[in-house]
Amino acid sequence: MKTYLDCIPCFFEQALRAGRVATDDERVLKHLLDELGRLLKDISLDSTPPETGRLVYQLVNRITGNPDPFKGLKRESTVKALSLYPQMKQVIEQADDRLLTAIRIAIAGNIIDFGPSGTFDIEATLDDALTRNFAVCDYEIFKRDLATAGQILYIGDNAGETVFDRLLIEQLDKPTLFVVREQPILNDATREDALEAGIDKVATIVSSGADAPGAVLNTCSPEFRKMLEEAEFIIAKGQGNYEALSNYHRPIFFLLKAKCKLIADDLGVSIGDIILKGINV
Amino acid sequence: MKTYLDCIPCFFEQALRAGRVATDDERVLKHLLDELGRLLKDISLDSTPPETGRLVYQLVNRITGNPDPFKGLKRESTVKALSLYPQMKQVIEQADDRLLTAIRIAIAGNIIDFGPSGTFDIEATLDDALTRNFAVCDYEIFKRDLATAGQILYIGDNAGETVFDRLLIEQLDKPTLFVVREQPILNDATREDALEAGIDKVATIVSSGADAPGAVLNTCSPEFRKMLEEAEFIIAKGQGNYEALSNYHRPIFFLLKAKCKLIADDLGVSIGDIILKGINV
Repeated sequence: MKTYLDCIPCFFEQALRAGRVATDDERVLKHLLDELGRLLKDISLDSTPPETGRLVYQLVNRITGNPDPFKGLKRESTVKALSLYPQMKQVIEQADDRLLTAIRIAIAGNIIDFGPSGTFDIEATLDDALTRNFAVCDYEIFKRDLATAGQILYIGDNAGETVFDRLLIEQLDKPTLFVVREQPILNDATREDALEAGIDKVATIVSSGADAPGAVLNTCSPEFRKMLEEAEFIIAKGQGNYEALSNYHRPIFFLLKAKCKLIADDLGVSIGDIILKGINV
Repeated sequence: MKTYLDCIPCFFEQALRAGRVATDDERVLKHLLDELGRLLKDISLDSTPPETGRLVYQLVNRITGNPDPFKGLKRESTVKALSLYPQMKQVIEQADDRLLTAIRIAIAGNIIDFGPSGTFDIEATLDDALTRNFAVCDYEIFKRDLATAGQILYIGDNAGETVFDRLLIEQLDKPTLFVVREQPILNDATREDALEAGIDKVATIVSSGADAPGAVLNTCSPEFRKMLEEAEFIIAKGQGNYEALSNYHRPIFFLLKAKCKLIADDLGVSIGDIILKGINV
């Protein structure tokens, strides 16, 4: 997905919100926005939003002098999500369609995001995701392709959300590679965050090599690009991965909640909608 | 009122919205945002928002090559407001408190604004303003001071809104100077817009000399500053004039609707609240 003009004010909002996680010094925050302003002319509308997001959040880390401002919030999100794990596990086990219920819960987990809006209510989102109709639902194709897949490549998104990914991986019941970001960026899950969520109990954790809030291919390692090229069944979570991979040439199932108007428009859905969308399937 | 860090993303939104009124050429719009980005380091948080708004909207006019992009929308607003004039006149004449009802209607007119949000429903806002409780209401002091005033200095805000100002000026029933912007900026009322609204039937139209979306004193003419210094009774409409004059040393009554969170916070009210606030009174 390309960057829209309307993404630009949003990048300033995101920089300010992330900057405030690191510091409350107004001069530093103004300097951060000034530097983003200077950078703007080098940002092409042909790049994907997570490519620019990468520059924005790297700038935040550099100007505030904090290489991982979201470390504390990420840990809190994981602890909160782990506290909901037993209850959600039970919801899945009692469901008529366990796999679809686990997909719904994994999508609900995608609301744990400090990027586009910054506020969320995970319990309310879980309730909503369990009952809301899918705006896009390629579930039958998902099941068909899953049945014959030997291994899953599961591209994670945010810390905390990983706990809900774990619930889905348990239902997929196949050998799974769980992909994390190589470097801390925004509240995206790194290896450490995935370990805290217990992903290692259900999958092998691998890095995409990327330090962007989304699997932006030119920032990913050759090893990851090879995995993507060869994977039998790919799941990509969240907006950032959708933005980065929506034009990829291989089959991918995107699981996300539309959290901004531009993504919603791109998908032909409304803000708040839940999506299970397969491309090239 | 000072500029807050949160005003900065909003300036980019406003520039984009105003730019789109003038052109749909994506390259021009991107260039506009890039130029605003370059300008950012020179914008001080100690300046008032309309001082920066002036730079933003001047940039829009310059980059799009259109010196008055809102000309058509301003005219439409005035035509629409004039169509509501007879009905509102009747509402006032049938009211128990005609002056307060006219104040409510003049405040409702303040919703005609393409700056902070860009969308509005004037009929719904009129209905709301006629019944909503004031969040700040210095009406008793307003009436007390009005009774002894020989002349009113009424600082207008947006085109279209001027029609509703005219209804209030009729109820004030005192010789009135109605202040317009010298140059087109955003959808703020100029002499031409005031004339189209029929303000000349109830007041003498004078210019502030300013080309900012608010009576920013260092952009106003010496003549206007003298008027302000000597005026017996001052009414200032809208957010831009509040932002520009909220620290002025003389008595002013501000009539506005809080349309953004920062103004609402500054006033200690909520977004959507209506305000009749006197300073130094």
